[in-house]
Amino acid sequence: MKVALLCIGDELLKGSTVNTNLAFIGERLLRIGIIPELSLEIPDRRDSILKALDYAYSKADTVITSGGLGPTSDDITKDSIAEYFGLPLERNEQIEAHLTAWWQKLHPGPTPLHWNRQACFPAGADIIPNRFGSAPGIHLEQNGKTIFMLPGPPAELHPMFEEGMLELIRNKRKEPVYASLTHVVGIGESIVEERTQPLLHDGVSVAYCASPGHVKLFFTSKNEALLNETTNRAKQIFAGDILSEGVSTLPEEVLHLLENRKCTLATAESCTGGMISAQLTAIPGSSAVFLGGAATYSNELKQLFLGVSETTLSKFGAVSRECAKEMVEGICARTGADAGISVTGIAGPSGGTSDKPVGRVYIGIKFQSTTRIFECNFRGGREQVRNQTVSRALNELRKLLLEREP
Amino acid sequence: MKVALLCIGDELLKGSTVNTNLAFIGERLLRIGIIPELSLEIPDRRDSILKALDYAYSKADTVITSGGLGPTSDDITKDSIAEYFGLPLERNEQIEAHLTAWWQKLHPGPTPLHWNRQACFPAGADIIPNRFGSAPGIHLEQNGKTIFMLPGPPAELHPMFEEGMLELIRNKRKEPVYASLTHVVGIGESIVEERTQPLLHDGVSVAYCASPGHVKLFFTSKNEALLNETTNRAKQIFAGDILSEGVSTLPEEVLHLLENRKCTLATAESCTGGMISAQLTAIPGSSAVFLGGAATYSNELKQLFLGVSETTLSKFGAVSRECAKEMVEGICARTGADAGISVTGIAGPSGGTSDKPVGRVYIGIKFQSTTRIFECNFRGGREQVRNQTVSRALNELRKLLLEREP
Repeated sequence: MKVALLCIGDELLKGSTVNTNLAFIGERLLRIGIIPELSLEIPDRRDSILKALDYAYSKADTVITSGGLGPTSDDITKDSIAEYFGLPLERNEQIEAHLTAWWQKLHPGPTPLHWNRQACFPAGADIIPNRFGSAPGIHLEQNGKTIFMLPGPPAELHPMFEEGMLELIRNKRKEPVYASLTHVVGIGESIVEERTQPLLHDGVSVAYCASPGHVKLFFTSKNEALLNETTNRAKQIFAGDILSEGVSTLPEEVLHLLENRKCTLATAESCTGGMISAQLTAIPGSSAVFLGGAATYSNELKQLFLGVSETTLSKFGAVSRECAKEMVEGICARTGADAGISVTGIAGPSGGTSDKPVGRVYIGIKFQSTTRIFECNFRGGREQVRNQTVSRALNELRKLLLEREP
Repeated sequence: MKVALLCIGDELLKGSTVNTNLAFIGERLLRIGIIPELSLEIPDRRDSILKALDYAYSKADTVITSGGLGPTSDDITKDSIAEYFGLPLERNEQIEAHLTAWWQKLHPGPTPLHWNRQACFPAGADIIPNRFGSAPGIHLEQNGKTIFMLPGPPAELHPMFEEGMLELIRNKRKEPVYASLTHVVGIGESIVEERTQPLLHDGVSVAYCASPGHVKLFFTSKNEALLNETTNRAKQIFAGDILSEGVSTLPEEVLHLLENRKCTLATAESCTGGMISAQLTAIPGSSAVFLGGAATYSNELKQLFLGVSETTLSKFGAVSRECAKEMVEGICARTGADAGISVTGIAGPSGGTSDKPVGRVYIGIKFQSTTRIFECNFRGGREQVRNQTVSRALNELRKLLLEREP
């Protein structure tokens, strides 16, 4: 089974929308052992869609499209695909009634012009419900070619793909393929690869998907027992550096471990300016654990909110081991949090000295009576330094939490 | 002139890297009036690259590639493109010496295996220096076809594209095309479109690029005087809702206006949990204006860091006009900042009531003696609500600052 993606929409080519759907679908397909042959971004134009379908089917048997299913005149994905397969578009009355009711529940007045175009589908297509928007998804099999059509907005595409389509794609395979996903954190991709190598043998494939401080390790196999054995051995090798079952990010893991221990968290950030607290609070329910944080950019705020001493600031400077320590101890003492994170450093591009170059960051973590300070020297620009700081800080706290039984 | 993009790298298809290069290049090309015909993401495989080049040149005369220029064995962009054009790869001794020196400056020991592959180029190609990495960019003209090759890492691609390639692309046109970019903030795309319509006439093209709270308005024309006149009229129409010359984001604009007024800023965030302070501190030099912020997620921290009264919290709740007011006044009073932003709301997915549904957010802004509170009802999921809150808050402060002369 070979898959190609077709992302349809002018906004993708004009730079107004970053194509996050590609990364989302790519990662989900990797979980079942599929890497797409290619992805195409094209404008909402009939001729572009027809040519792109030709090209996609020259490399794949299954095409997944996103975008262009809505009611407006530039939504021409269905029309073009029906034309490509030589099929008429047919109105589905049940969907039409549902769409009218959906509109009326949310808005006063009649449905907009062309609203019911969303109830038309290529003859013979299966309809996939959209729980978070109006345009349904579509699954069509024709002349040995498979096509899945998804709406463009990520809030609609993600659940539709995950709840229905992934299973359909998995089942289209002649033989079942089993897959596992293990999240390894705090270890570089090349080291994860090196340590995984001895586990590999015939019948098991591996793939890696790396972002700063986080490597996703995917195994796939046609043999379920073999897959489980390999996955379990990987979990032993990386024990202590993997996320808990059901958790997929570092901020989630930190909140999860703290919740298990019935403990609270607070943060004190200088060079990351609130990135850690922003990432923690992006997670629904974080308020059960996270009390809040202080983005103490100026020295005065480090004194005011965290009680960092003037002596420390004048003797060692704001970017120092001593300041990181007072920051993390200060935020815990003032808020009463059981755990704390502090960050102070030089993110660049200016502000570095020969003694403390750009990329020098001190991270403090505290849990109950233990405080640890880390001196880090990150490489890259301001954004990279800040991103690396966030993952390192969260990972160090994670490791400290694991030393204590829940 | 028709342009196609070719983004090369397994990581784009496996979901480990979001293809931000496409959005970057798309936006920059739009500034000179070009919308790419298509973009392709393909793996690091010779046959995929050759097939993709065929397809790209069937739709365009100019191809821009990203990725696969590095020294490792999976970097095969140059080899495949040289093969496609029937050209040999030639070693450039000057670049080789430069690359060796570059390595030695940064690392002890000899250069890695294959390091000098980066000094090989298709015969007849122009070399474009890379200020932020090792692999140079390449410009090649062959049989009426143009190709630009860029390295994949955004930190290398962005400056290389902006400093050199964009000018080369612009100059390849037979007639010069003039372009302008105006940033309109706080107005929806459809209203921007509606108000721009009367300005349009023969000889001027317009394009829009929208993100939450921000529409980029691009005019292009072969007639420079006509372009300037249209742009100036647009600036009059949107006066008060456009960013200052040389500024391209809302957080930058707020810092810019405050710096002009020699004033400082502090933030107090509940449901955005530090997103505003994180965005402000992403900008180099923000410390000249931004003192810091408090991410007061719990009620206790709203009292502790901001002095919100217990009566307000129990009588009106944390998500209330009254609380937003005490938050913004509290952060300004405690930090001594001239300007402040506060945010308190229900980002969801849970926590809403019939009285205060998910999406209800109160925003407070303060500048000197003026405080204003806004009740907002945002739609969408947790992420959308938080993003809309950030742009609305920054924009309201921007408008208040504009009422006061610098």
